Amino acid sequence: MSYRIEHDTMGEVKVPADKYWGAQTERSHENFKIGPEGSMPREIIQAFAYLKKAAAFTNKDAGILPEEKRDLIAQVCDEILAGELSTEFPLVIWQTGSGTQSNMNVNEVIANRAHVMQGNKLGEGKTFIHPNDDVNKSQSSNDTYPTAMHIAAYKMLIETTIPGVEKLRNTLKEKSEQFKDVVKIGRTHLMDATPLTLGQEFSGYVAQLTYGLKALNNTLAHLSELALGGTAVGTGINTPKNYDVNVAKYIAEFTGLPFQTAENKFEALAAHDAIVESHGALKQLAVSLMKIANDVRMLASGPRSGIGEIFIPENEPGSSIMPGKVNPTQCEALTMVAAQVMGNDVAISIGGANGHYELNVFKPLMAANFLQSARLLGEACVSFNDHCAIGIEPNYEGIKKHVENSLMLVTALNPHIGYENAAKIAKKAHKENTSLRAAALELGLLTNEQFDQWVRPEDMIGGLK
Amino acid sequence: MSYRIEHDTMGEVKVPADKYWGAQTERSHENFKIGPEGSMPREIIQAFAYLKKAAAFTNKDAGILPEEKRDLIAQVCDEILAGELSTEFPLVIWQTGSGTQSNMNVNEVIANRAHVMQGNKLGEGKTFIHPNDDVNKSQSSNDTYPTAMHIAAYKMLIETTIPGVEKLRNTLKEKSEQFKDVVKIGRTHLMDATPLTLGQEFSGYVAQLTYGLKALNNTLAHLSELALGGTAVGTGINTPKNYDVNVAKYIAEFTGLPFQTAENKFEALAAHDAIVESHGALKQLAVSLMKIANDVRMLASGPRSGIGEIFIPENEPGSSIMPGKVNPTQCEALTMVAAQVMGNDVAISIGGANGHYELNVFKPLMAANFLQSARLLGEACVSFNDHCAIGIEPNYEGIKKHVENSLMLVTALNPHIGYENAAKIAKKAHKENTSLRAAALELGLLTNEQFDQWVRPEDMIGGLK
Amino acid sequence: MSYRIEHDTMGEVKVPADKYWGAQTERSHENFKIGPEGSMPREIIQAFAYLKKAAAFTNKDAGILPEEKRDLIAQVCDEILAGELSTEFPLVIWQTGSGTQSNMNVNEVIANRAHVMQGNKLGEGKTFIHPNDDVNKSQSSNDTYPTAMHIAAYKMLIETTIPGVEKLRNTLKEKSEQFKDVVKIGRTHLMDATPLTLGQEFSGYVAQLTYGLKALNNTLAHLSELALGGTAVGTGINTPKNYDVNVAKYIAEFTGLPFQTAENKFEALAAHDAIVESHGALKQLAVSLMKIANDVRMLASGPRSGIGEIFIPENEPGSSIMPGKVNPTQCEALTMVAAQVMGNDVAISIGGANGHYELNVFKPLMAANFLQSARLLGEACVSFNDHCAIGIEPNYEGIKKHVENSLMLVTALNPHIGYENAAKIAKKAHKENTSLRAAALELGLLTNEQFDQWVRPEDMIGGLK
Amino acid sequence: MSYRIEHDTMGEVKVPADKYWGAQTERSHENFKIGPEGSMPREIIQAFAYLKKAAAFTNKDAGILPEEKRDLIAQVCDEILAGELSTEFPLVIWQTGSGTQSNMNVNEVIANRAHVMQGNKLGEGKTFIHPNDDVNKSQSSNDTYPTAMHIAAYKMLIETTIPGVEKLRNTLKEKSEQFKDVVKIGRTHLMDATPLTLGQEFSGYVAQLTYGLKALNNTLAHLSELALGGTAVGTGINTPKNYDVNVAKYIAEFTGLPFQTAENKFEALAAHDAIVESHGALKQLAVSLMKIANDVRMLASGPRSGIGEIFIPENEPGSSIMPGKVNPTQCEALTMVAAQVMGNDVAISIGGANGHYELNVFKPLMAANFLQSARLLGEACVSFNDHCAIGIEPNYEGIKKHVENSLMLVTALNPHIGYENAAKIAKKAHKENTSLRAAALELGLLTNEQFDQWVRPEDMIGGLK
Repeated sequence: MSYRIEHDTMGEVKVPADKYWGAQTERSHENFKIGPEGSMPREIIQAFAYLKKAAAFTNKDAGILPEEKRDLIAQVCDEILAGELSTEFPLVIWQTGSGTQSNMNVNEVIANRAHVMQGNKLGEGKTFIHPNDDVNKSQSSNDTYPTAMHIAAYKMLIETTIPGVEKLRNTLKEKSEQFKDVVKIGRTHLMDATPLTLGQEFSGYVAQLTYGLKALNNTLAHLSELALGGTAVGTGINTPKNYDVNVAKYIAEFTGLPFQTAENKFEALAAHDAIVESHGALKQLAVSLMKIANDVRMLASGPRSGIGEIFIPENEPGSSIMPGKVNPTQCEALTMVAAQVMGNDVAISIGGANGHYELNVFKPLMAANFLQSARLLGEACVSFNDHCAIGIEPNYEGIKKHVENSLMLVTALNPHIGYENAAKIAKKAHKENTSLRAAALELGLLTNEQFDQWVRPEDMIGGLK
Repeated sequence: MSYRIEHDTMGEVKVPADKYWGAQTERSHENFKIGPEGSMPREIIQAFAYLKKAAAFTNKDAGILPEEKRDLIAQVCDEILAGELSTEFPLVIWQTGSGTQSNMNVNEVIANRAHVMQGNKLGEGKTFIHPNDDVNKSQSSNDTYPTAMHIAAYKMLIETTIPGVEKLRNTLKEKSEQFKDVVKIGRTHLMDATPLTLGQEFSGYVAQLTYGLKALNNTLAHLSELALGGTAVGTGINTPKNYDVNVAKYIAEFTGLPFQTAENKFEALAAHDAIVESHGALKQLAVSLMKIANDVRMLASGPRSGIGEIFIPENEPGSSIMPGKVNPTQCEALTMVAAQVMGNDVAISIGGANGHYELNVFKPLMAANFLQSARLLGEACVSFNDHCAIGIEPNYEGIKKHVENSLMLVTALNPHIGYENAAKIAKKAHKENTSLRAAALELGLLTNEQFDQWVRPEDMIGGLK
Repeated sequence: MSYRIEHDTMGEVKVPADKYWGAQTERSHENFKIGPEGSMPREIIQAFAYLKKAAAFTNKDAGILPEEKRDLIAQVCDEILAGELSTEFPLVIWQTGSGTQSNMNVNEVIANRAHVMQGNKLGEGKTFIHPNDDVNKSQSSNDTYPTAMHIAAYKMLIETTIPGVEKLRNTLKEKSEQFKDVVKIGRTHLMDATPLTLGQEFSGYVAQLTYGLKALNNTLAHLSELALGGTAVGTGINTPKNYDVNVAKYIAEFTGLPFQTAENKFEALAAHDAIVESHGALKQLAVSLMKIANDVRMLASGPRSGIGEIFIPENEPGSSIMPGKVNPTQCEALTMVAAQVMGNDVAISIGGANGHYELNVFKPLMAANFLQSARLLGEACVSFNDHCAIGIEPNYEGIKKHVENSLMLVTALNPHIGYENAAKIAKKAHKENTSLRAAALELGLLTNEQFDQWVRPEDMIGGLK
Repeated sequence: MSYRIEHDTMGEVKVPADKYWGAQTERSHENFKIGPEGSMPREIIQAFAYLKKAAAFTNKDAGILPEEKRDLIAQVCDEILAGELSTEFPLVIWQTGSGTQSNMNVNEVIANRAHVMQGNKLGEGKTFIHPNDDVNKSQSSNDTYPTAMHIAAYKMLIETTIPGVEKLRNTLKEKSEQFKDVVKIGRTHLMDATPLTLGQEFSGYVAQLTYGLKALNNTLAHLSELALGGTAVGTGINTPKNYDVNVAKYIAEFTGLPFQTAENKFEALAAHDAIVESHGALKQLAVSLMKIANDVRMLASGPRSGIGEIFIPENEPGSSIMPGKVNPTQCEALTMVAAQVMGNDVAISIGGANGHYELNVFKPLMAANFLQSARLLGEACVSFNDHCAIGIEPNYEGIKKHVENSLMLVTALNPHIGYENAAKIAKKAHKENTSLRAAALELGLLTNEQFDQWVRPEDMIGGLK
C-alpha cells in the first residue's frame, strides 16, 4: 500500500495514499484494533453529515464562515448522506469514549474531499478547508457526538422501530378481530383455566404493543434535544450568539425531524439519560415481544403432541435430520432479539451511569447498543409479521377438543353452588377421568338442566357483563 | 405451640391456634420455606385491604353481597390498613407466581377476624363470612394480585419516591443558583478542560433529575390501570355488570389516587408491562443518581491529595483505624442503591418477559423488586439530601488554584490564532511546566495585552453568548 | 425512650439507654434511614463475631492484648454466635460502602457488653475494653468487612446452597434411573421430534446441576482467602508479625472451614472478584434451574388441554376462583428465585466493577445480594425437591398417546430411503392426517415389513449405538 | 442478478446463479432480513468446517461414507478454513434459534462446491454429494451447531482472550516490580489514607487478572465437551457405533485443542451452561478491567488539576476544540468493552435459561455474544497494554507532594497513643491547615523525636511485618 504524510498537532502520520482521512483518524485506526474495522455505526456517520452541514450554514449566517467554505462543506456532507464515501470511515466503536476520533474522521474527510473537489490532488498543498478551524468551527467532539447520537437514534426509531412494531401491532389487531368468536380454553400457570376467545387472547398482545409504542413515544421529546452549542464542557465556549438554537433549526430542516436545542447543555454532554430513557422503552417492547412470541410458539406446538391451537406458516424445512419438520423460526429470531435488547439495556445503563464531571465517555458504546436494539426490534417485528403473524390461523379442531374436555368450566358454577361444591365436582371428574356433567349429577349437586343452563363456554367469555 | 384444625378443598390442615389465617395460608407457609418468613411486602397486604374493601362495596351495590357482610369485611380491612394485624401475614415472596396464596391469606384473615369481631371464638363454628364466596367474590387471585401490585407501586411512587427525588432536586437547584458565580475548571475525560461555574455543573444534575421525574410521571397513567374485574383469565367471569369500572372508582376513592379500570384485562393479567415501564424510569433515575453521587465524592475528595473543590458534611468518623478520616458515606449509600435498582431492573424484565398464555406468574418477584427500588430510591435521596447535599459548600481555595493553573484556558485562543497555534502554546507550557502566558509570549503568537483580553476564565463560562 | 450519652471522636451522641451499641452505631442509625431497619444481613454479623474472636486470640498470642481482654471479647462473640444479641445490630445495608459502621457496631457492642459482663452498669464508667484500641486491634473496617463477606458467603454456600442443590440433583438422578425405560416423544423448537426416554430427559437436568455444582466448587478456593491483616489499605499497617496467617488459622478453626490468608491484600480490599466469581456460578445454577423448572411445568401442564406427560404433587388449591385447579407452584417459586439471582448478578457486577484505588465501597450491597442469592437458591431447591421433584411420576397414558402419533419417527428411515423420501412420507401423513405407515405404503417407498423393522421407537432412544 | 433454481423438501427456490448456497440457505436469506447481512460469526462457519470434515472422516471410518466423498468434503472444508469461500455465508444471527439454516448453508455450499470441483457446472445435474445425506450424515443441526459454538468459543479464548489478558497481566506485573519502592498515598473512599507503594497498588491489579485467568481456565473443561453424536434430541439416532467419541478425536486432531465428546448429550443440546459458565468468567474479567482502567485514568488525571500520580502515553490529540489536551483513551475503550461484556452476560443468561425440552433455541444469540465478548476483551487488553500500560510511569513530583501532605500518616500513632488521641491530632491539623507534626506537638501528645521515629511513610508500606 502506498502512503502519504499527514500531520496534526502531535506530528506526522503515514496515511493510505488514496484515503481522504487524515492524521488523527489514522492514529485512532492504528491505536484501536479492537473488534471488526469500521464498526462505528454508519448511522452515526450520516448524522455527523447532517450536523456538519448545519453547523456550516449556521456559522455562515453568523458571519464567521465564508459562503464558499459553507458550500464546499455542505457538498461533501451531501455525498456522505448519499452513501458515496462509505469506505472513508474505518474507525471502531472501541475508541475514545467521547467519539472525538470519529468526529475528526468526518472533519478530515470533509476537508480533504473538498480539496479534491476543488481540483487539487489529495495530499498536495494546504487544504482550503481546515478540519478543526472550519469544519469543526463552533463545535467540539463533546457536543457533536451526542448530537449525532440523538439524530441517529431518533431517525432509527422513526424510520425503522416504530413502523416495524406498528406493522405487527396492526396485524395482531386484525387477527384479534378475525378471531373474536373463536372460543378456546384459557390457561393460567400453564394449566387449563376458564375459556376465552382467541381474539381476546390476541387483544392482550395488541394492548402490550400499544402501551409499548406509547412508552416509546413518551421518550421522543427528550431525545429531540440536541447538545450542539455546548462545545467543550457545556458552556458554549467559541460559539456565536444563538448558535445553539439556530444550528438545531437547520438540523430539523435537513432531517425533517423536530429537533431542538437542549435546555441544559451540561446534562447533554455529561449524561445520556435520553438514550437510557428511550432504550428503556425499547427494552419494554422486547419484554412484550418475548411474551407474545413465546405464546405463539406454544400455541402452535405439535403438530401432534403439542398444544396445537393455531397454525403458523411453514417457511423452511425445520430440521436437517428430521424430515418434514416445521419450526416456529420467526418466534425464535424475535425472542433472540428480545434477549439481545435486554442485554444491551444493561450495557447502556452501565455506560450512562459512569459519566464523570463534564463528560460521559461511554458514548460510542451507548450509541452502538441503542442503534442495534432499535434496528433489530423494528426489523424483527417486520420479519415476524410478514413471515408469521399474517399467516396465523386457528386450528379449530385442536381448539374444540380442548374446550370440550376442560374441567375449568366448573368455575361457572361458583355463584350457583359455591366454590367448595364446585371444587368437589372438578376433583371427582379429574380423579375418575369423567366429564363435569357426570360428576355433578352423580354428586347430586345440580340437575341436568341446570348444568345445561349454567355451564356454557360461550357465556363465559363475553367480556364483562 | 397449640393448633386448631382448618380445612379447604384439599382437606384438613393444622393451623396455629391463635392466628387468623386458615388452611390455604398454612399450606403455603409449610410448602414454601424460602428466605425469611413474611417477606411478601407489607405494601402488597395493605393494597389488598384497599381492594377487598372496594370489592365488598361494589358487590353490595350490585346486590350480591349483604350490607352486613360488606361492613364486616370493610372493618377488618380498616384494621389491616391501620397496621393492627401485621403478624397475620407470614407468607413469602417465593410462593406461587400468581400470589394466590397471599390473596387467600387476606381472604382467610378477613373471614376469621370478622368471625371473632362478631363475638365468636376463633376456630369454633362456621364463619359467617366465607373466604372465597364472600371476601373473594367477583375476584380471582389473577386480577387481585396485579391490582394490589399497581396500588402498592403507585402509592410508593407518590408517597416516597417522587417526594424524595424532588427534595434532592430542589436542593441541588438551590445549590446551583447559590454557586452560579463560582468559576471552576471543567473536566472532560477526567482531564482538565475549559472552565465553567460550579452552579452550571450542578444545573446538569438538576436537569438529570428533572428529566427523570418527567420520565417517571409518564409511566403513571399505565400504572393507574387496574386489572380488577378480569377475574380468572381476563374475561371477567363471575362478575356483575360494570363491576370493573365501579370497583376501580372505590379504590380511587379509598386511596385518594386516580386509579381506573384497565382498558384490556387480558394484558393486565398476562403481562405486567406497566411495572416494567415504570421500573424503567426508576432505573433511569438510578443511572442519574450514580453519576451525581460519583461527581460529588470525586469533587469532595482529599482533604489534601484529592480534587478538593467542594466540602461535604462530616457526619461520622470515617475509619475504624485511620483517626480523623471523613468519608462520602451518603454518596456510597446512594450509589449502592443505584446498583441495586439496576440489578432489580433485570429481575423485573426477566419476570415480565416470561408470562405464559393468560397469566404472568412472576408477580410477587416483580412486586417485591419494584417496591424495594421505589422505596430505596426515595429514602436514599432524602438521606443524601439531608446529610450531604444541603451541606455542600465550595472549597474556594481549591477551586481557585485549579482554575489559575489550567492549560485549557488556551481554548479561548482558537478563534484568534487557530487550533494548531493554540495547541503549540498548551504543549509548550505543559512540557516546560510554565504558564500559558509565558509560553504564548515566548512563541511570539500574541502580545501580553492580547492575552489579557482573550484569556479570561470569567468570559469562558457565560452560557451561550 | 430513655437515652444515655456516648461519645466518639466527633463528640457526643444520645443512644437508647438499654442498647449496647455506641456513638458510631447511633450516628449511622440516624444518618441512614434507607429501607427496613437492621437489614445488614445477620450472617455478616455472625461472621464478624468469628473474626473478632479470632483477632483477639491472635493479638493475645502476639503479646499485644491481655488474656483477660481476649477472653471477654471471645465471650461476647460466643453470645453473638448463639444469637443472643440479635437486637443490637440495627444498621442497614445502605450505609457507608466499606461497612465501617457495622464493624463499629460490633466493636461497640462487644465493648459495652463486656463492661456489663464485668458487673458494671451500661453507660457508667469507662469500659475496660476499648472498641477501637482493643476489639478492633490489628484491624480496619477495610479488611474486616471483606473478611466477614467471605466467611458469611462461604458458610452459606456450604451449609445451604450446595446441600440444597445436591439434594435436588440426587432426586432427579433417582428419577432419571427410575424413568429409564419410559419412551416418550422428544421435542425440539417445542415441536414433536424423535423419541427419547423420560430418564434421558431427566439425565440432562442432572448433568446441568452437576456441572453447576462443579462450577460453584471451582470458586471456593478464591472465596476461602481472607483479607484480614491488610488493615487500612492492604499494607497491614499496625499489625504484628504473621498476624494475617495466624488470624486466618483461628478463623478456620472456629468455623471449621478451610479459610486462609489472601495472597494479595490489595486485591482483597479494593476488589471483590471472589464474590463476583462465586456469584457467577450461582447465576449459572439459576439459569439451569429456570430451564429445569420450565420443563417440569410444561410437561405437567393440563390436566386435559396441556402436554400432560408427567404428574406433579398437588400441594395447594390452585385458584381462588377456579375450583379444583392445581398449579405447578414450586416451579413458579423456583423460577422467580432464578430471575432474582440473575438480577442480583448485575447488581454484584456493577458493585464489583466500581472499586476505586485501595477500596471497593459497594461491600454491603455485594454481601447482601450474594447472601440472598445463595440462601434462596439452596432453600428453593429443597422446597422444589421436597414438594415437587420427589413426587414426579410419568403420565403413562399421555406419554403413550404422543409417541404413537408422532410423525418424527420417520427420522429412522433416513439411512434407508434418504432424507428427501422420508420427508415426503412425513408431509403426506401430516397433510392427510394419517399415519406414517399408511403414507409410506401409499407412496410405495417401503414395505409393511420394512416399516415394522425400521420404525421402532424403542430402537431410537438407546443412547449411541 | 441472474438466478438458478434449487429445490428442497418444500419445493423450488431461486438462488443467485453464482453462489454455492442452495434452497434452504436462500429461504433463510429471504425470511430473516434482520440486521446486517452475514452477521452469523465467521468463527462459527470456520468451526463448522472443522466438524464437517471430522464427521466425514468418522463416517468413512465407520464404513458409511465412501472415501471419495470424504475427500471431497474435506477439501471444501479446507477451503473454508483458508477463508476462500467467505462470501458464501450470507445468513444472520437472527434466524432459527437452532442455527439449522447455517448448518444447511454449510452443507449446501460443500455439496455444490464439490460439484464444481469435480468439473461440473453449478446448478447443472445432480450433485454427487448430497447436503443432507452425505455432508450432514450422522449429524443434526441440533448437535452440530452447539459443537460449532464450543469449537469457536474455545479457540477464541485460547487464541485471543487468554493471550491478550496475559499480556496485560504480565506488563502490570513488570510495572508492579518496577514501582515497588515508590511510596505514595493510599486512598480509600476516594479520600486520603495511609501510604502504600505504587508497586503494591499495581500488584492488586495483577492479582485480579491472575484470579480472572484462573477462573476462565476453570471453565475450559466444560467447554471442551462436544455435543456431536447426539443428533436430533441427544439420543444419537442415525449415528454409527462410537461415532461421538471418534468424531471428537478428529476435531481435537484438526484443531489441535483438547476436545472430547460430551458426557451427557441431552444437556449438550438442551442447555448451553458451558457457554453461560465460561462467559461468567469473561464477565468477571470485565469487572476487574473496569476497576483497573478506572484507577489508571484517575491516577493519570490532570495534568494540573487532577490526581496526577502517574503519566500515561500521549497517543492522540485529545480534543477537537481544546488544543494540547491528551486523554486516557485506552482506558475509555477498555471500560466500554467491559460494559459491553456485562451487558452480553445478561443476554447470554436469558438465552441460556430459556431452553425448552430437548433443545435450546437461543444458540446463535449465545454464540454471537460470547464471541464478541471474548474477542473484544482479548483485543482491548492488547490495545490497552501496547498503547497505555507499557508506557505508564510514576509522576514522582505529584506522588511526593501528596505523601508529604497527608494527614493519614497519623494512623501510625494508634499503637503508641491510641485511636482517639491520634484522631485529635489529625482533626486539629486538618482544621488549622497545618502539619501533623505541628498539631501533635502543640497538643503535647508526643515529642519531636517520637514523631520522627513513629511517623515514617516508608515504614508504613512494608507489607505485613
